[in-house]
Amino acid sequence: MKNYLAATPDNFAWPTLAVIEYCDLADDGAILVRWADQQVSRFHPIWLRDNCACDVCLHPFTREHLTDLLELPLDLKADKVSLDSDGALIVTWLVDSHVSVFNPGWLFAHCALSQQPSAPPLLWTATELVEPMSFSATDEQLNDDVLLEVLVAVESTGLARIRNFGSSRDTVEALGLRIGPVRETHFARIFDVVSRADGDSNAYTSERLSAHTDIPTREAPPGLQVLHCLVADADGGASTMTDGFKLAADLADRFPQDYAILSTLKWCFANRGGDTDYRWQAPIINVDENGKVFEVRLLPFSRAPLMTEYKNIEPAYRALQRFMAMANSAEYQMRYQFAAGDIVIFDNRRILHGREEFFPQTGDRELRGLYLDRDDVQSKIRMLTKEQTT
Amino acid sequence: MKNYLAATPDNFAWPTLAVIEYCDLADDGAILVRWADQQVSRFHPIWLRDNCACDVCLHPFTREHLTDLLELPLDLKADKVSLDSDGALIVTWLVDSHVSVFNPGWLFAHCALSQQPSAPPLLWTATELVEPMSFSATDEQLNDDVLLEVLVAVESTGLARIRNFGSSRDTVEALGLRIGPVRETHFARIFDVVSRADGDSNAYTSERLSAHTDIPTREAPPGLQVLHCLVADADGGASTMTDGFKLAADLADRFPQDYAILSTLKWCFANRGGDTDYRWQAPIINVDENGKVFEVRLLPFSRAPLMTEYKNIEPAYRALQRFMAMANSAEYQMRYQFAAGDIVIFDNRRILHGREEFFPQTGDRELRGLYLDRDDVQSKIRMLTKEQTT
Repeated sequence: MKNYLAATPDNFAWPTLAVIEYCDLADDGAILVRWADQQVSRFHPIWLRDNCACDVCLHPFTREHLTDLLELPLDLKADKVSLDSDGALIVTWLVDSHVSVFNPGWLFAHCALSQQPSAPPLLWTATELVEPMSFSATDEQLNDDVLLEVLVAVESTGLARIRNFGSSRDTVEALGLRIGPVRETHFARIFDVVSRADGDSNAYTSERLSAHTDIPTREAPPGLQVLHCLVADADGGASTMTDGFKLAADLADRFPQDYAILSTLKWCFANRGGDTDYRWQAPIINVDENGKVFEVRLLPFSRAPLMTEYKNIEPAYRALQRFMAMANSAEYQMRYQFAAGDIVIFDNRRILHGREEFFPQTGDRELRGLYLDRDDVQSKIRMLTKEQTT
Repeated sequence: MKNYLAATPDNFAWPTLAVIEYCDLADDGAILVRWADQQVSRFHPIWLRDNCACDVCLHPFTREHLTDLLELPLDLKADKVSLDSDGALIVTWLVDSHVSVFNPGWLFAHCALSQQPSAPPLLWTATELVEPMSFSATDEQLNDDVLLEVLVAVESTGLARIRNFGSSRDTVEALGLRIGPVRETHFARIFDVVSRADGDSNAYTSERLSAHTDIPTREAPPGLQVLHCLVADADGGASTMTDGFKLAADLADRFPQDYAILSTLKWCFANRGGDTDYRWQAPIINVDENGKVFEVRLLPFSRAPLMTEYKNIEPAYRALQRFMAMANSAEYQMRYQFAAGDIVIFDNRRILHGREEFFPQTGDRELRGLYLDRDDVQSKIRMLTKEQTT
């Protein structure tokens, strides 16, 4: 069979090279396709034509549409359908005799039969995952195969660690840019987490930081954090990580009223230091239209006044205290030491990170970090997966 | 009266220096405040204590909380309340004799009595707003007062123009960084919109671009675009702008079924050019939990396959065609020419921008741009407003 992936590189990764046994036109204009397992798919003419991937309809390099959708009549009809010698679906259109060729693998991947929910994340307590899934690689050894494994671990458990990565100050930016563009914030494009007198956040002290997510004060908090440990000579300063999705799931089970409050009532978070005044209101547990948790926001030291009715205040604070107590408990909170050369990548909208107090008089501690977004990781995983399959 | 804004700089802008006439403790522990107009506010003890802005509770420089919320008992009670000689509310707490001082202006701004919905945006058709609200300023003349006016125009109408700003290549980055950190994307941190053979988007050709928003292929599309015209010598290439919020409002009035589809059905958008594969699914008209439109996404040339049931296909495409036809119509679409030295700032999640075809053989056309986010503008407006009031 012809390699349609290479022949029509529309860049959609599809896992199945499906086989079409038979195709036909229905009376209502639908294009019918019968697969090898005898199941039948119906494709709508306007949908098929809109997805024609020929060089006239789709720019060969930008992969952007060249046809104006407004020029396609809604009652567009196929004149004839057939299979070519490579098994592709050929549709000739009545209105302009245009010919579209559809890779059967792509068609199957985009029909109702093959729509699978994506794999759920692996939720964990501190006894189920005692430290981040870890990989060992020098900068030179981190080839695409290892990077893919690292990113898949981040997608699944919310975090991953690369050990023995060296301690060059340029490393974290280079690694970040391999994955996606840096998500710059008002703190700095690449930030240095060290104790300093004039810091614009408690992060830049040597104090304990309880479980938190960074920058819930923005409409879109950064999705991923990449933290590179350059120096770890100070006593104390153990890192902590808590799975916010697991917390949310267990809170829903054990304290459904607290879950109901935290997933609906909007708390306000504010960054009021320095020259900026970012504020955002959002629930601490954010659920999508299907009730699925997609984001946790919690920065206890950047709470701004909760704006709600008097009667909601006490239940709201009770729920928040419960959530914070769970997030900082031995049951849920993983604890480990950074070593120089460690990189930790974690999902800042799922994992609550923190640290124990450290003691600058006993030695230096220096982390260097940056942010990315979730869909940078998703894009990179798609590209790396595609390279493996072609 | 003492200037509490300066004395306790908790960085919340509050418009009213309210006067407290009387304060008291209710039987249930609530702190009661009677304002000069005889209205009464009830404040919950845990809420007040959590918002104590003294140097022990809130870091004087970072403005982040230093107290651990888990250490505050939910049944916390005030021991006594009083007014000091400057009219501030003084609360002494029973548990630890801690004393909190609350600026009456801040208290009033955060009580139920003063909660006002924010001013609605000014929606426009192409006859109501024939060109962007325009300001004239050289780089040196754009002081904070003018910048504030520009940003308020963007908040209200979705866009603003600064003319005669010069045509240095560094200008757009310098202006952007005055407002907020650059929102970098996979296209480039600072991008040059010129016609080129190897562009990874149709934007980098000389073709007409129909009304669109940039990068709906990301979970969080860039909120603001800043475009600086360096050269405008080519024939053609008129800029177009359409108010997506006005389109949505009129679609809801005139074609409620189309509005219902576009505000619920998730379309898929994909950037498939180059080394990335960003995809996101979202409605074209995005509404919040109160049904208010907060975002429009439309990039006709980056549509990816719509995944929905067969019966929805035709209604969905009909609705999309209607929306696109409105977006590109003379009724809704503003049209004007760029001149060298013009800067246009627009809300990329509200305004659909586009351009007419231009003719590179008649002269050069060069724009240089970057993205910011909406809350960068909101933060900057807060800071500039604060400077004006202090």
